[in-house]
Amino acid sequence: MGKVVTNIQRADPAVIDGLAAAGVATVHEAQGRIGLLSSRLRPIYPGARIAGSAVTISAPPGDNWMIHVAVEQLKEGDILVLAPTSPSEDGYFGDLLATSAQARGCRGLIIDAGVRDVRDLTQMNFPVWSKAVFAQGTIKGTLGSVNVPIVCADAAIEPGDVIVADDDGVCVVKRADAADVLAKAQAREANEESKRVRLAAGELGLDIYDMRGKLAEMGLTYE
Amino acid sequence: MGKVVTNIQRADPAVIDGLAAAGVATVHEAQGRIGLLSSRLRPIYPGARIAGSAVTISAPPGDNWMIHVAVEQLKEGDILVLAPTSPSEDGYFGDLLATSAQARGCRGLIIDAGVRDVRDLTQMNFPVWSKAVFAQGTIKGTLGSVNVPIVCADAAIEPGDVIVADDDGVCVVKRADAADVLAKAQAREANEESKRVRLAAGELGLDIYDMRGKLAEMGLTYE
Amino acid sequence: MGKVVTNIQRADPAVIDGLAAAGVATVHEAQGRIGLLSSRLRPIYPGARIAGSAVTISAPPGDNWMIHVAVEQLKEGDILVLAPTSPSEDGYFGDLLATSAQARGCRGLIIDAGVRDVRDLTQMNFPVWSKAVFAQGTIKGTLGSVNVPIVCADAAIEPGDVIVADDDGVCVVKRADAADVLAKAQAREANEESKRVRLAAGELGLDIYDMRGKLAEMGLTYE
Amino acid sequence: MGKVVTNIQRADPAVIDGLAAAGVATVHEAQGRIGLLSSRLRPIYPGARIAGSAVTISAPPGDNWMIHVAVEQLKEGDILVLAPTSPSEDGYFGDLLATSAQARGCRGLIIDAGVRDVRDLTQMNFPVWSKAVFAQGTIKGTLGSVNVPIVCADAAIEPGDVIVADDDGVCVVKRADAADVLAKAQAREANEESKRVRLAAGELGLDIYDMRGKLAEMGLTYE
Amino acid sequence: MGKVVTNIQRADPAVIDGLAAAGVATVHEAQGRIGLLSSRLRPIYPGARIAGSAVTISAPPGDNWMIHVAVEQLKEGDILVLAPTSPSEDGYFGDLLATSAQARGCRGLIIDAGVRDVRDLTQMNFPVWSKAVFAQGTIKGTLGSVNVPIVCADAAIEPGDVIVADDDGVCVVKRADAADVLAKAQAREANEESKRVRLAAGELGLDIYDMRGKLAEMGLTYE
Amino acid sequence: MGKVVTNIQRADPAVIDGLAAAGVATVHEAQGRIGLLSSRLRPIYPGARIAGSAVTISAPPGDNWMIHVAVEQLKEGDILVLAPTSPSEDGYFGDLLATSAQARGCRGLIIDAGVRDVRDLTQMNFPVWSKAVFAQGTIKGTLGSVNVPIVCADAAIEPGDVIVADDDGVCVVKRADAADVLAKAQAREANEESKRVRLAAGELGLDIYDMRGKLAEMGLTYE
Repeated sequence: MGKVVTNIQRADPAVIDGLAAAGVATVHEAQGRIGLLSSRLRPIYPGARIAGSAVTISAPPGDNWMIHVAVEQLKEGDILVLAPTSPSEDGYFGDLLATSAQARGCRGLIIDAGVRDVRDLTQMNFPVWSKAVFAQGTIKGTLGSVNVPIVCADAAIEPGDVIVADDDGVCVVKRADAADVLAKAQAREANEESKRVRLAAGELGLDIYDMRGKLAEMGLTYE
Repeated sequence: MGKVVTNIQRADPAVIDGLAAAGVATVHEAQGRIGLLSSRLRPIYPGARIAGSAVTISAPPGDNWMIHVAVEQLKEGDILVLAPTSPSEDGYFGDLLATSAQARGCRGLIIDAGVRDVRDLTQMNFPVWSKAVFAQGTIKGTLGSVNVPIVCADAAIEPGDVIVADDDGVCVVKRADAADVLAKAQAREANEESKRVRLAAGELGLDIYDMRGKLAEMGLTYE
Repeated sequence: MGKVVTNIQRADPAVIDGLAAAGVATVHEAQGRIGLLSSRLRPIYPGARIAGSAVTISAPPGDNWMIHVAVEQLKEGDILVLAPTSPSEDGYFGDLLATSAQARGCRGLIIDAGVRDVRDLTQMNFPVWSKAVFAQGTIKGTLGSVNVPIVCADAAIEPGDVIVADDDGVCVVKRADAADVLAKAQAREANEESKRVRLAAGELGLDIYDMRGKLAEMGLTYE
Repeated sequence: MGKVVTNIQRADPAVIDGLAAAGVATVHEAQGRIGLLSSRLRPIYPGARIAGSAVTISAPPGDNWMIHVAVEQLKEGDILVLAPTSPSEDGYFGDLLATSAQARGCRGLIIDAGVRDVRDLTQMNFPVWSKAVFAQGTIKGTLGSVNVPIVCADAAIEPGDVIVADDDGVCVVKRADAADVLAKAQAREANEESKRVRLAAGELGLDIYDMRGKLAEMGLTYE
Repeated sequence: MGKVVTNIQRADPAVIDGLAAAGVATVHEAQGRIGLLSSRLRPIYPGARIAGSAVTISAPPGDNWMIHVAVEQLKEGDILVLAPTSPSEDGYFGDLLATSAQARGCRGLIIDAGVRDVRDLTQMNFPVWSKAVFAQGTIKGTLGSVNVPIVCADAAIEPGDVIVADDDGVCVVKRADAADVLAKAQAREANEESKRVRLAAGELGLDIYDMRGKLAEMGLTYE
Repeated sequence: MGKVVTNIQRADPAVIDGLAAAGVATVHEAQGRIGLLSSRLRPIYPGARIAGSAVTISAPPGDNWMIHVAVEQLKEGDILVLAPTSPSEDGYFGDLLATSAQARGCRGLIIDAGVRDVRDLTQMNFPVWSKAVFAQGTIKGTLGSVNVPIVCADAAIEPGDVIVADDDGVCVVKRADAADVLAKAQAREANEESKRVRLAAGELGLDIYDMRGKLAEMGLTYE
């Protein structure tokens, strides 16, 4: 505790933006169905779709001091990711911190705790994925750390990893894997598009994916 | 397990549409306060209001193979209803399956598990009531059954039963009872309308429903 | 049980409206971080922002009779606040009761249980903060009390206390403290505005709030 | 609602006792992994292991009147199974009802709600599987039904079905299937015994079940 | 915050001990079914049955400093009751604090948060009713208050109120009502004893409580 | 997925046994309040207190195949630690697997999912800390991995890390830190012992820890 790492590495901005366009479900599939954060994290408003480099925060329960420290570490295109050291739903983050983070180029916040001022955050177009919406204020009394490895909502996240978030939730991509995952995601999307056309025309997945033989072999019976 | 029933009976389409217009709360009251699914099922977007015939799916946890099988059984106006055989919040259903189901006339999905691609589903106007939004992919490895009786989110549902779903949640009406329940629902609505006018004018329910005597008799006191 | 208090005192309407404008997060901070109701209470639609005098209801589980009694006690600008005597998520309140309450000047409902007809309530612009959306009907069989002290969603509330509710949740202000809390809330807002301008310009909270010395003293290290 | 079925059929007592001896996990496996009630039902004390014929109760939330009605329907070896019509954790059942039920030959209670007097119930050796332990009293004001089909904690149960309950939870066996399930359960136990001896001697499941080839074929690699 | 009230009043020790003997369910019934704390509070070991005067603690999340302050206020026969100012499951209390509290005559702890060292507490015969068992350590950084009114697990509690706790959970009795509640509890127990004898002999509650007429009148039918 | 690491390093057995003796709460404090697994993991019976080297398992939801693979990797003194790749409460582990694991020297199981046969496991003295007790059977259809880094119940765990588990829950100690943490834990225990004696004699923590001045300085007032 009490450590701030200042020179983290980030993935290629073009790759990051490509991952945002692909979206959480596709990215998660493309990297072998890993990296999802718990479904308990929900967006405070629908429609946001972002990706960025994780600036991580390990913070004590009910203490948001380290967010101020983390804001100084933000670069254009980053996303704040906060994990409390024990469960909390306090409102660590509100409109003033969002104003500050947004001024530093931050694209959003992922927090396994609470957030407040959600009306203002919505108007500012500053998206947050959180465990709770709760106005409970926090203190500034104990040190945490910034840009250290954390576990946030069931996922291990290192500073500089790529965070992808949309209406489906949040996914983390290891920094070193980002370009490869993007390539796979785009390949997957291309493949899905042709399937979508056929399915929209009324063809069945049973036929497109050639499932009937396997199902019969396993014993599926029709009555 | 491993059974697909192909010729299920459905209720009269006009009755089904009448139940959709009545809505979940009224239908549930009209049939004697039975048939509600658990409040843990929530719509992925507000405003949808549907009714349809249940095509039921019993599926293993984290395995969505049977949805492909069920899609072939869909007829215009049906609703898919999936219950996992043990608790799961995996994302069994996304935009490709929705494209396929919608092409077959499906009006929506009720699932006591997770769903993904909710942004796409919203844009497609394909409503889903689910326990979770979660991008977690599923496999196609084990058989389940289609159009067998299931228990979904606390309610016993048989294939061909009428599902009604709106912002208040989800209700099931036994197929054989559908016409009778619709008649009662419409009677209830007519009765409520006259009450609504009086209440809007400032009359009290205490007077309209003649409650004062009973309350006094039971011992209600005013200070 | 079985008691209705008819002549409760209320706070100054101008003060109440001032508290609504300040919002839940600011009011909660202004009164020393007390008074929040549990985050399990969520608004049925986004954007509502109200304050009003609490007309409290203690009701048995699954029994909404006392709401009818409470409606008679409503005055312009009041808010209904219902706590069940044991946990329930039944739908105590729907569009008819909302019509009645709204006709009597009621601004909204806070309920540590369920609500239904949320589509209608949304169209009526009648906001509700509830634990659940659930169509389950209730009975009228047992007495409760109106305008007695209650504990609702973790907060102690007395009739006539000021309720403030917005997208961040719900907060209660003791009636006798309302004017003082409003003054503090407005002072807080004025102070925050100047901070917001500086933060938006890219200044850091670390500097504005002069935190660097204290952090270093406590042992924060940069790598 | 308001119906009591008096002449239900029950399974063979010897079969029922055989299922008790097999236990929940084995019975659930023997019948194809169906019939488990939700894991939210937990025993009030460890070590109980019972089976019996279900006398079912559908009861309103917070109203235990129908338990008195159900007690009259009990025969030696029965088990009471109560599902509330909407979620409740009230204490429907305590030492007086247990005394009465036990006097009528009842072996225990399965309840998707609350129970109280658990110290007394433990001393009486009257086992209960419940969702909660909660002293909250209930009323006797509204009718429910006895010996009708219910959904209890995710499982569909008909009167006379066999309930098996132990430290692992609760399982229901259809009355007509009971003898067949018992035979399969006993075969399963016999088979497991030989496996247990080999495993206890240090042989690996990988070898006993001949898994290595299939694992390698699917791509499992050792580093 | 930051206030300690030193001279609280307590109920008559004989009355307190009488309430312990009556137990939670009976006491809660005797005072009109009020005063129960949420069922989420569970005892760390079975069999404890205590009553005592509440020494209340309002503490910040994850900060147990005020427990040390509260221990000084303990008198023989008291019970510590802690409510965090926002939800927490941290381990506020362990064997050292229990040693200290026990040395001052404390009979147990009620805490709407976490506890640790439960093995030691069990061996010391120091009972705790808590929301969680969790080893997470707490800090001593922020003031709370001792012997102020609190809301703990849904119940409003004032210092000096009588706490009754056993395997069924926790109940609070207003200090001024304690003697009256005890009298009612003892009357209730006497009345129950005669019922128990009749029920144990096989008489039905339907007859003892003369329910058959009322049930028939309400429409109960037997098939 | 599909990887088994066969030659993991383990900590010194004497250090591991020392950590078991220190217990979860002390170990967690000694290493700076890190490493706790979520409080949702609870022991299936009270009184167990173990430490061992983690043999980690990443397994699909509802698929326990990898446990068989992991058993082959067990050495005397190891502990199995299983994290499902998406939330599950299925019963991955029962008496046969416990027999096998115990025969290979395994001291227990930590699983963020379900377990069954708990009566047998208790009689075998094979302790398990799990999220649920649930008899639901699992399949053997999809590969996972053994001895790879996992996130289990909020904690990042690497194979060979030391797991400590007792009635307070579960804590992980990095392998490389184990000896240092043990030293600190023992120092902490020695220090606590002297405090315990003074507290048991009635001295106050306020005096032993010299807190009065700091409390007064922060504004604590006595009334």
